[in-house]
Order: sequence, then structure tokens, then C-alpha cells
Amino acid sequence: MAKKQLRVGMIGYGFMGRAHSNAYKQVGQFFPSQHEVVLKAACARDAEKIKAFANQWGYESTETDWRKLIERKDIDVVDICTPNNMHKEIAIAAAAAGKAILCEKPLAMNVPEGREMVAAVEKAGVPNMVWYNYRRIPAVTLAKKLIDEGRLGRIFHYRAKFLQDWTIKSDLPQGGQGLWRLDVAAAGSGVSGDLLAHCIDTSLWLNGRLDSVCAMTETFVKERMHNLTGKVEKVGIDDACTFMGRYENGSLANFESTRYARGHKALYTFEINGEDMSLFWDLHDLHRLQIFDYKVEGKLRGWSSIHVTDNGGDHPYMQNWWVPGLAIGYDSSFTHQVADFIQGLESGKPQGPTFRDALETQCVLDAILDSAKSQKWVDVPKG
Amino acid sequence: MAKKQLRVGMIGYGFMGRAHSNAYKQVGQFFPSQHEVVLKAACARDAEKIKAFANQWGYESTETDWRKLIERKDIDVVDICTPNNMHKEIAIAAAAAGKAILCEKPLAMNVPEGREMVAAVEKAGVPNMVWYNYRRIPAVTLAKKLIDEGRLGRIFHYRAKFLQDWTIKSDLPQGGQGLWRLDVAAAGSGVSGDLLAHCIDTSLWLNGRLDSVCAMTETFVKERMHNLTGKVEKVGIDDACTFMGRYENGSLANFESTRYARGHKALYTFEINGEDMSLFWDLHDLHRLQIFDYKVEGKLRGWSSIHVTDNGGDHPYMQNWWVPGLAIGYDSSFTHQVADFIQGLESGKPQGPTFRDALETQCVLDAILDSAKSQKWVDVPKG
Amino acid sequence: MAKKQLRVGMIGYGFMGRAHSNAYKQVGQFFPSQHEVVLKAACARDAEKIKAFANQWGYESTETDWRKLIERKDIDVVDICTPNNMHKEIAIAAAAAGKAILCEKPLAMNVPEGREMVAAVEKAGVPNMVWYNYRRIPAVTLAKKLIDEGRLGRIFHYRAKFLQDWTIKSDLPQGGQGLWRLDVAAAGSGVSGDLLAHCIDTSLWLNGRLDSVCAMTETFVKERMHNLTGKVEKVGIDDACTFMGRYENGSLANFESTRYARGHKALYTFEINGEDMSLFWDLHDLHRLQIFDYKVEGKLRGWSSIHVTDNGGDHPYMQNWWVPGLAIGYDSSFTHQVADFIQGLESGKPQGPTFRDALETQCVLDAILDSAKSQKWVDVPKG
Amino acid sequence: MAKKQLRVGMIGYGFMGRAHSNAYKQVGQFFPSQHEVVLKAACARDAEKIKAFANQWGYESTETDWRKLIERKDIDVVDICTPNNMHKEIAIAAAAAGKAILCEKPLAMNVPEGREMVAAVEKAGVPNMVWYNYRRIPAVTLAKKLIDEGRLGRIFHYRAKFLQDWTIKSDLPQGGQGLWRLDVAAAGSGVSGDLLAHCIDTSLWLNGRLDSVCAMTETFVKERMHNLTGKVEKVGIDDACTFMGRYENGSLANFESTRYARGHKALYTFEINGEDMSLFWDLHDLHRLQIFDYKVEGKLRGWSSIHVTDNGGDHPYMQNWWVPGLAIGYDSSFTHQVADFIQGLESGKPQGPTFRDALETQCVLDAILDSAKSQKWVDVPKG
Repeated sequence: MAKKQLRVGMIGYGFMGRAHSNAYKQVGQFFPSQHEVVLKAACARDAEKIKAFANQWGYESTETDWRKLIERKDIDVVDICTPNNMHKEIAIAAAAAGKAILCEKPLAMNVPEGREMVAAVEKAGVPNMVWYNYRRIPAVTLAKKLIDEGRLGRIFHYRAKFLQDWTIKSDLPQGGQGLWRLDVAAAGSGVSGDLLAHCIDTSLWLNGRLDSVCAMTETFVKERMHNLTGKVEKVGIDDACTFMGRYENGSLANFESTRYARGHKALYTFEINGEDMSLFWDLHDLHRLQIFDYKVEGKLRGWSSIHVTDNGGDHPYMQNWWVPGLAIGYDSSFTHQVADFIQGLESGKPQGPTFRDALETQCVLDAILDSAKSQKWVDVPKG
Repeated sequence: MAKKQLRVGMIGYGFMGRAHSNAYKQVGQFFPSQHEVVLKAACARDAEKIKAFANQWGYESTETDWRKLIERKDIDVVDICTPNNMHKEIAIAAAAAGKAILCEKPLAMNVPEGREMVAAVEKAGVPNMVWYNYRRIPAVTLAKKLIDEGRLGRIFHYRAKFLQDWTIKSDLPQGGQGLWRLDVAAAGSGVSGDLLAHCIDTSLWLNGRLDSVCAMTETFVKERMHNLTGKVEKVGIDDACTFMGRYENGSLANFESTRYARGHKALYTFEINGEDMSLFWDLHDLHRLQIFDYKVEGKLRGWSSIHVTDNGGDHPYMQNWWVPGLAIGYDSSFTHQVADFIQGLESGKPQGPTFRDALETQCVLDAILDSAKSQKWVDVPKG
Repeated sequence: MAKKQLRVGMIGYGFMGRAHSNAYKQVGQFFPSQHEVVLKAACARDAEKIKAFANQWGYESTETDWRKLIERKDIDVVDICTPNNMHKEIAIAAAAAGKAILCEKPLAMNVPEGREMVAAVEKAGVPNMVWYNYRRIPAVTLAKKLIDEGRLGRIFHYRAKFLQDWTIKSDLPQGGQGLWRLDVAAAGSGVSGDLLAHCIDTSLWLNGRLDSVCAMTETFVKERMHNLTGKVEKVGIDDACTFMGRYENGSLANFESTRYARGHKALYTFEINGEDMSLFWDLHDLHRLQIFDYKVEGKLRGWSSIHVTDNGGDHPYMQNWWVPGLAIGYDSSFTHQVADFIQGLESGKPQGPTFRDALETQCVLDAILDSAKSQKWVDVPKG
Repeated sequence: MAKKQLRVGMIGYGFMGRAHSNAYKQVGQFFPSQHEVVLKAACARDAEKIKAFANQWGYESTETDWRKLIERKDIDVVDICTPNNMHKEIAIAAAAAGKAILCEKPLAMNVPEGREMVAAVEKAGVPNMVWYNYRRIPAVTLAKKLIDEGRLGRIFHYRAKFLQDWTIKSDLPQGGQGLWRLDVAAAGSGVSGDLLAHCIDTSLWLNGRLDSVCAMTETFVKERMHNLTGKVEKVGIDDACTFMGRYENGSLANFESTRYARGHKALYTFEINGEDMSLFWDLHDLHRLQIFDYKVEGKLRGWSSIHVTDNGGDHPYMQNWWVPGLAIGYDSSFTHQVADFIQGLESGKPQGPTFRDALETQCVLDAILDSAKSQKWVDVPKG
């Protein structure tokens, strides 16, 4: 039986361009379906660089103008891996062209942009998804499963952190290739849009709507050389952001993100405390889920570290990989996302996070930045 | 050479009465000095119970009226282990009687009370100390030493939590013996005064003054049977409290405490992120200090777990205990505090936390509760 | 009701003399019984040193000749804390004098000595116990409880290690105060009698008789200055010892001990793998027991770390200490041993390890050293 | 510049067939070189199954007779993923046909077979390598680097374990697809050839030659249904194997492997204790290397957990993957092996483990089994 082609047009070739491309290439071997992913075209302004990228990853062709890519008849899916300030324009154009869209996170620079993008894809009726990939780390997916099974009982607390340390050096420039995340014009915000966005997406998925937040931000290094202008300029992004909040279900939120936590490379952790069970996960040991099950007999109760690598059917996604005890990496989360995206196409049940889901995260992000500025509690707007 | 007697009058006989008594009995063997601690008298309203306690712990006599205890000529030190609402009256009377005072934490019900107490001991010129015992867990003292040596560089973040889970059961009563911590009239507050107070004391000691805070509190179980009245009554304490803040040194604070974190018995943790070094400590493994030292060669950098049990002189207090690898318990922190209190007497250099130090913690506590009520940022008052 | 006195005569004043004395002083407060322990006399050849020790710990009198101590009518219990080569003579004399005996481990220099000692105490009918204190770390006692409840099913493997690193320095002398453990004449053996003895005692208690063993020993530093002779002499002890073995119950043994494992201060660990449950314990975090319970639902199975500090009745000994989450130290194991010794006296049911129990450990030790010498498998003799 | 093709002929399609195929597909994107790997043909006796496998993984053609595959002119490399009892015949034929060979481990059923294979590839002068993939987990490679830099000083101990629990069920059959590892006719041995072989390979690489060993084996389940004969038959493999040994460099070996350690899925760990540094690694958290560095200042010494994910050049292989903190999986070790194999081809410096290297491991394996049978110490033969 011939497979149906899913022809990808990739815009961008950085870290995420590589991560997604690896997923497209792996998905057919580990998660076979009725679709065959074809790397049709890669696009970036720099003709030489995008050609090198296309050669290395096996894209059949290149473009230097994303509008051309979108117009191509032989592209089914547009993958947006550009800096954040380009998401909206490309996504709206791609939707108008009837393409399915896979967009990097955060969805947009702000809520108004996000609303336009949601309207565009929903009007066009095109499949759409945002790359909040951590939902599909098997240990995180297992957490979702346990919550959906009602094992936690009433939730009291949700705590998340995303700590890094790579921008402590004050001579690191802002802006330009690889460093656009430090440039407010390209990124829209700092750690909030880059790191907290992941924490918020997971949290909304696991624990439901956040009603209100109160935030604090700080920019520790106030000025940096700007790579594009060649001048020392004021830094516009948040280096650190902490916020408290209240969920619709009555539980309390405590979130923090920073790039100034010496010793932490990408320490995304979350902990949920329920009446009957607590859960903890840590990106640095992404293959483990820690649980405390109050229903265990008293003297045996403890925090249990589940090595989420069983291929016997119980651990999400793992039946498609190796044997128990053999961990898969960060990159597999993208492979899982492509597998689920395809499954959504085939089943007609779109898999999240859709643009609409990601807009909810954007609403929290905007509320946080509002709160940090006004120094007041802020109600999270509805998407 | 005959030792000088230090005759203790203990008020209270609960958990803390036992912990302090053990320290008084142990200190002479492990930290010999020119003083000999004598357990002179124990005091509580219930004559039978205090007699049993005195017998078990070797107190020479008992009293049922604390005023009588304070009047006794054969008492040098008054140890206040009562519920919080009695601290002020007893301390002021003891100071007036010229007694040295060791008072349980938190110092007082609120800042005005605390100010009166500080004034009283300073006017009377009596030695005074508050039982914030965690400063003297060897791993915590080592953290202080590393900070004082300037090893952390600029501090960016201070994070502390104190998580418990023992009040999740809604049929747990409030008030009365052993449960006065749930009764706002006796305790003044909930987790903030009970647990966060410890976190704040350590933090002020390690990281200096907190300038401003913004807090959120919650009472998850709104009504409980009151043991003293026999009626179901509104719960007045905070079950959970989270706050953000800014330190004078420019670093950011993120603190949280709750008694609703299923799976955590007494999880007091703190983490400090400095430019050159980060530190982490956890009461559940109190004999360890985790450090990340950025000055270590790149490829070897990691979080290092120091088993703070060396008796070779480098690990605080440990030269007086056993041999490397053999952990001491929670109780030893009280023994260390008594040893240091005596050293303060002998050297004429009072060891903290004094009442004045503890008043600073009280100021933060009041600011937190103000902020939680007003839902605004609050400047921390000066002691 | 007046308590019955239990008058202790302590022989020795080193590390163990201090650890036992602390236990004698603490036991009445934490484990009250019908007996009151009285520190009657301390004995050592050096009059000045033993006086200082007696003063510090509150012994009422001193002796410089252990025979005198044993003759005293006002001594009920003799505690032998001398180097190993003195155990036999003292114990036999103390038994003849009708004293109860608490003897440091290992019981003797070898099996023949041990047999004489067992014969002596059994003939005299005196209470006797050996200070294999690790049985009474609450987490270890909990392990015993789980095994006795039949939770492990068929046992396949028992693995134990005791790793230290304090003798790596080749300029450390052998012999003399504090270093007699390196002198074969005083200690009888090296790590086998000092460290493996603990592992073996625990193992026989938890997993039953060892039938046969095959061992390897090594002395890494062949010559050391001898503190007593002032000359560089051949080192007679084993620096490291590894052995394999077979238990009567069909399970396999893997034991190792060394003082050359850089980075380990006193890493005594054991792991037991049963069909239904596995257990792991580590002296460096002595308040935790790790279990893997196969009866837990598949997707939730993991290694669970039990913080053995609950005072609700479920965790051995802990109801007598503090509140959940607050760890006790290494020293508490001695307090528990004294408490159980007294309970044995009061109930008429002697608590182990008795001399007879400790003789079984001695049999394994001798078999190990035989095997290491002959390079053959050796059957463990019966006590 | 056109790349040179490296045309692979894969024999087998099981777990390892998949792992290697994934590596062949990934290597060009993550470790670009002058070679392009082409999946030319896959071979197995079952025509339907091998066709499905080839389709899923993108092999251009299939064969059902491995001799035909070897004869094909369009194959450069033969990858042997069959059960162990087929390795020799295929390898010798492939060498004779001038093919490069990548052979699964263990090299052979025994030393005589291994010697024939080494002779064959060396006579033919064909590139050859054995899939002891754990050498190329970045944390393990980092360990090698630290040892080669002389950081450990004199080595005292090497300890390794490989613990699993998947064969505890006595109703698991032996033999046949997926279970040939339990059939002595196909596998040659049990855990020794399957699991200890990995531990030995790593150890010889890190710590040099093992001179002598003394081993113990056990078969816990004595009879199992045989899938090929349909009868209950005696189990010929070792379920567990423990051995002690002495290295040429004077250090001591303690190795153990079992499939009856409840709770361990694939717990391959090793620890090396050197005078100046100790190292520990654990396959369950394969992205971490734990080190204890004695050269660190006294009070700061501890076991440090290095998250081996830095892409700044210091952590082996990681500059080709993602950013710090993002772990790669087990599968990446195969990708690294292919990358190094190609580098060996291009540089003319063959990368190990070659057949000759793997023969040394085979010599230890044979010595272990001899020792377990004879119950004596056995000198390890030379390759």
C-alpha cells in the first residue's frame, strides 16, 4: 500500500530547524503510519547556508523567500522555525495558502498577534500545532495520564521552574544569529517567552486554567553590545521572572525562570501536590517521573523514581523504542509530536497544542509581563 | 578547676522542651567549656505532667507558675518553649528579673510585640537568643562560611521552601495540646510564623536584608473542630504562603511554605545562585550541602554533594562528634546552639540570632501577611 | 516507683567509649524503662586520660586496671571497648565475675577465641551482647521487619560493601592510640574484622546462614611506620577484601570492603534482591531505606526512598524521637541498642546479637581469611 | 564535492538491527564526513519479515541468504546482527569477500572461534569493529579521557555490575525469536556473554588487562519450555555471574551480572577508585558521570554529578547535538560508533573495539566460565 506523502517546507535552520528535521526523518521508522514525511524544501534568506543545511538533512530543494515557499504547490506543511517576530506574518500567509502549520513556540509576540493567528488557521481550516514539545517526553505524558485517571485527588500546589545560567557573562552580545533570544525586538520577551512559556503550556495541560497572576521580573545585565547594530544598547528582555498565581481549580502556582542560576543548564522542573499523590519531573533526568503515592501502606511510603522506559505498553511512546532501562533523549519528544500530528490528521482528531491552546499560554505570558510592570495582581485574559 | 554553673529554668515540656533538654544534657560531653549546664527547674501549669517531664529529663525541681520560676534566685537562664502568644510577657518579665533568655521562635506574635521584647532585653542587658536552630546544622553553617569567604560572587537568586503535609486531613482539630500551631490565637499565624520564619532567619543571615515582598496566602481547610471550645470554628491561620521579594543586594527572593505538599514531611530547602558558586541544602538530608563551583574546570563542573561529616577541622562542629561519614541528627543543631550560647557568654561576644536579629525576621513576617491581605507589594519595616 | 540501677563499668575511652557513653546517658530520656543506667566507673591504663574522660562523661570513678573494675561489687555491666586482642581475656573474667557484658565488635580475634567466650558467658549465664549497632538504625530495622513479613519472596542476591578511603596515605603509621586498627597484633585483621564484620552481622540477621565463601584480600601499602616500635614494619592487615558466597537459602553473596575507595568515608551499603521486593540501604544516608516493590502497578513501579522518620508507630524506634522528617544520627543506633538490652533484661528474652550470634560472624570472617590465603572456596564452619 | 558511498548490508532485523539502522540514518546529519552511508540491503531467512523491515528503514533491497548478501558487489560493509552462534561463519566469509565488518557483541561463542575470526579479518585486511557501544556514551568517553589524562593516579579498585530482572518469571520460554539469549545453543552463555561482556570491554579499555579471575555462576530457573522444540528443557545458560579478579596494574576487580535483580532494568554501573580521583557511571542515567576529585579543597570535596551535555567542546560528541542540559539517548551511542568507524576509514587509524580488542574480552569470558566450573582461580589467556 502506497503511503500518502506529507511534504514539509521548513523555514529556518537553527537549533529548532535541526531538531524538527531529525524528527521528520525518524518518525517513519519508529512510528509508522499511512503517511510518509518528505523533506521537500528548506528556506532562509542566506542562500548558501540554507543550501548547506538542506544538503546535510536531505531537503530536496531550497528557497530564500518564505513567501515563495508558501506558494509552492508541492508543500503540505509549513514549519515555522524563525525568530518570534516573524511567526504571525508567516502563519497567516501559510493559512491563507491552505497549508498545515507547525509553528515554534511561543505562538506570537503577544496576545493580539496570537488572536489573529488563531483566527487565520481556524478560518482556513488548516491543521495547526505549536512545538511545545515537553508534553511528549514520556515521563511528562505519564504524568498527564495519572492526572486524567484522577489519582491525585484535589490539587493544592503546582510549582515549576526553568533555570539556566548561560547569559551570566556580561560580554555576551544581544541579537543576531543564535542570540536573537536576547533581543527584545526579535524575541518579544526574555525568559518568560522562551522558558516560562514551556512551563505554562505544560501546566495548563496538566492543571487547567490559571485565573490570576502576580509577577516580578529583573534584568540583571542592563546593557549589552547589539550584534546587529554594533553598539552597546539597553537590554529589553527579562533575565529572570518569578510569578505566583491562582488556578481555577483552587490550587496555587509558583513559577520561576532565570538565565542566572549558576549550575543549571536547562533545569525545567515541575511538581504537583495532590491530596492523594504528588508528581515531580526534571528535564535534566527527563526519563524519570517521581511520584509519592499516599495510598501506599504507611511505613512503605516514599518518593518513587519511575524509570519511564518500559516497552510493555504502560509507558507512553516507549513501546516504539528499545527495551526497559534504555533511555531515549530530548530529541525524541519532537519525533513523538510529529507522530501525533500525523495521527491527528489520520484520525481527524487534531492533537494539541493547537494554535488555540498556545494562545492560552500567550494570555498568561501577557498577564505576567503586565503584572511585573504594574506591580499588581492581574487577571489572565481569555484567549 | 570547678566549672561555673548555668542553671536552666525551662518553661514548657513539648517537642521543643525535649529538644532543648537533650541539648543541655549533651553539650558538656561534646562541647566542653568552663560552664556546666544544670537542669534546675521545669515549669508548666499541669503539675503532674511537668513532674513526669522533670523526672524523665533530670530537672531538679518543678514549678506550675512561670512567674515563680522567674523569681527564683537559682535560675540563670529562662528557656521559653510556650506557644507564641506567651513569649512576650514571659520574656519581658525574665529580662526584668535579670535572667538570660533563650526563646523559641518566632520571637513574637508581631512586630510591635517583638520591639517591646528587644527593648526589654537590651535595657536589662541580659544575654538573649532565639531558637532558630537551623543556622547550626553543620551543612548550613558551612554555607555561611562559603558566603563569608566571598566564594559566591554577586548573588542573583535566593530560593527557599518549607513543605509539609500533616494537616491535609480535614478532621484534624485546631488548638489544644500539640495542635496549638493550628490555632491563630495561640500561634499568631500558620505556616508563615512556624515554617517560613526558619527560612527567613537563615536567609537574612546568609543573604542580608530583604527590602520588599509580595505574598499570597491560602487556607485550604476553612473550618476545623477547636479542641478547646469543642466547636467547629473558622480556621484563622495560613495553610500555605508564597512570597516573592527583593533583597538589598539586588538578588531576588522566591519563598514558599505549605502544610499541603503531599509527600514532604519537613522539606526545608534553600538554594542560592551566585555568579561563581551556587549552594543547595535540604533538611531531609541535613548532613549534605550541594555546591556548584563555576571555578572548577569546564568539563568537570557539576553539582557536588558534600557529606558534611569530616572531623578534620574543616566541617563546622564536626570535630566534636564522630568520624567521617557518620551523620549526626537534627537534634545536634540544638546542642550546637547551646554550645555557642555558652561561648558567647564566655567570650563576651553574643552569638546570634539575638532577639534583635529575630525581630528582623518578624518584620518580614508582618510584611508578608500585610501583603497577602492587601494584595500589594510591601516594604519590609526596619526592626 | 524507684528504678533499678544498671551500673556500667566502661573499659576504654576512645571513639566507641564515647559513643556508648552517649547512649547510656540518652537512653533514659528517650526510652524510659524500669532501669536507670548509672555510669559507675571508667577504666584505662592511663590514669590521667581516663580521669579526664570520666569527668567529661560523668562517670563516678575510675580504674586503671580492668581486673579491679571487674571485681567491683558496684558494677552490673562491663562494657569492653578495648582493641580486639583484649576482648577474650576481659570477657571471660567478667563472665566469671557474674557481670553482664557488652562487647565491642568483632567478638574476638578468631573463632577459637570466640568459642571460649561464648562458652564462658553461657556457662556463667550472664546477659551478653555485641555492639553490632547497625542492626538498630531504624531503616535497617525496617528492612528486617519487611523480610520477616515475607514481603521479598525468594531471595536471589545479597550485596554489601563497606568502603572507606582514610588509609590511602602511605605515611599514616600503624599501631598506637587511634591507629591500632592498622596493627594486626591488636586488630587481628584489617577491613575484614573492622568493616566486613558489620556487613556480615547484618546479612546473617537479614538473610540467614552463609554456607561457603571465596575471598580475595590485598594490602596496598606493604610497609608502614609502627607507632609503638618506631620502626617501619610490614603491614599485616588486609587493606581490602572481596568475597563471593552462597547462602543456605540459595541466594548469592557479593561483599567488598576497602579503605582505598577514594571519595567514600563510611559507605556501608547493602542490597537484597527478592522475587517480589528489593531493598537498599546506605550508611551515608542512614535515615532512608530504598525499596522496589514489584507488587505495585506496572507503570508506577520504581525505587522508592522511604524517609524513615515517622513517629506514628510504623517506623522502628522513631516514635521515641521527634516528628516526621527530622533525622536522627548514627549515635542513636547505640541508644537503641542499650534500650533493647534493657528490654531484654526486663522481659527475660535476650536481644541479639549475643556472643553466640557474633560467633557466627566470626566463623564467616575466619573462612574469608582462610579462603584468601588458600585461594579456594571454603565452607563456613559452624559456631 | 560528491561523498563516497558506504553501502551497508545488514544481517538480522531484531533489536540491534533497528538500533544500528537508526545510527546509519542519523550519522550523516549529526556527524557529517566524506562518506555517505547507504542502506543497501537487509537480510534474513524470513522473506516477508525482512521485506517489512527493509521498507520501514529504507533498505534498498533484501536477501534471504546471507551468503548471497556477502557476494554482492554493491555492499561495502556487512553488519552482523544475528545470534552469537552465527557470528564466526558469517564474519569469516565476509572477510574473505573483502567486506568491512561490523559485528554484534560478544565477538564469538568462545576464544577459539574468536581467534579464527581475528585471523580472518587481519589476513584479509578488512576494517572491522565490534558493537560494544557503551564506550561511546559521552559520559563513558569522558571517563576514558580523564583516565588518559592521568587524573586518577594509582588505581585501586574497579567495580562493575549489570543487573536486570526480566527473566525472573519461570514461565518465560527459552529460545526462538527474541528469546535466543536464553538458549545456550544460540547464545553460548547467559548473562556473562550478554551483559558482563559489556562491562569487561569497558573495563579493559579504561583499566587495562585483567590477569586472573575467580567466578561463581548460578542458574536460578533450572528448566524452561524451549520455543523451538516445544519441550521443557534444561536451561544451559548462567542466570547470574559474579567474579573477582586482579588487573595487571595491581587493582582489584569486582564484577557482577544477573537477570534476577528485581527493580533493575538495565543497571550497568561501573566505579573506579584511584588515588586522586574516583569515577562512577550508571546506564540508567547515562548522561551523567559522577566524579570525586581529591584535589579539590578539603571542605568542598564531594561526589559531583556532571551532566555530560555541554556543546562547548569539552564533552565528547556533544558539540554535534543540542545545547547544554538536553540529554541524548542510548541510541546515540550507535550513531557515535558509526561516526568513529567512518573516521577510522578516512584517517587510516582504525577505531576500536576491533575484533582483536573484542577477543581480549572473549578471553576474560572464557576464563570466567572456566573458573565457575572448576571453582578455582584462572589466569586469563592471551588473545
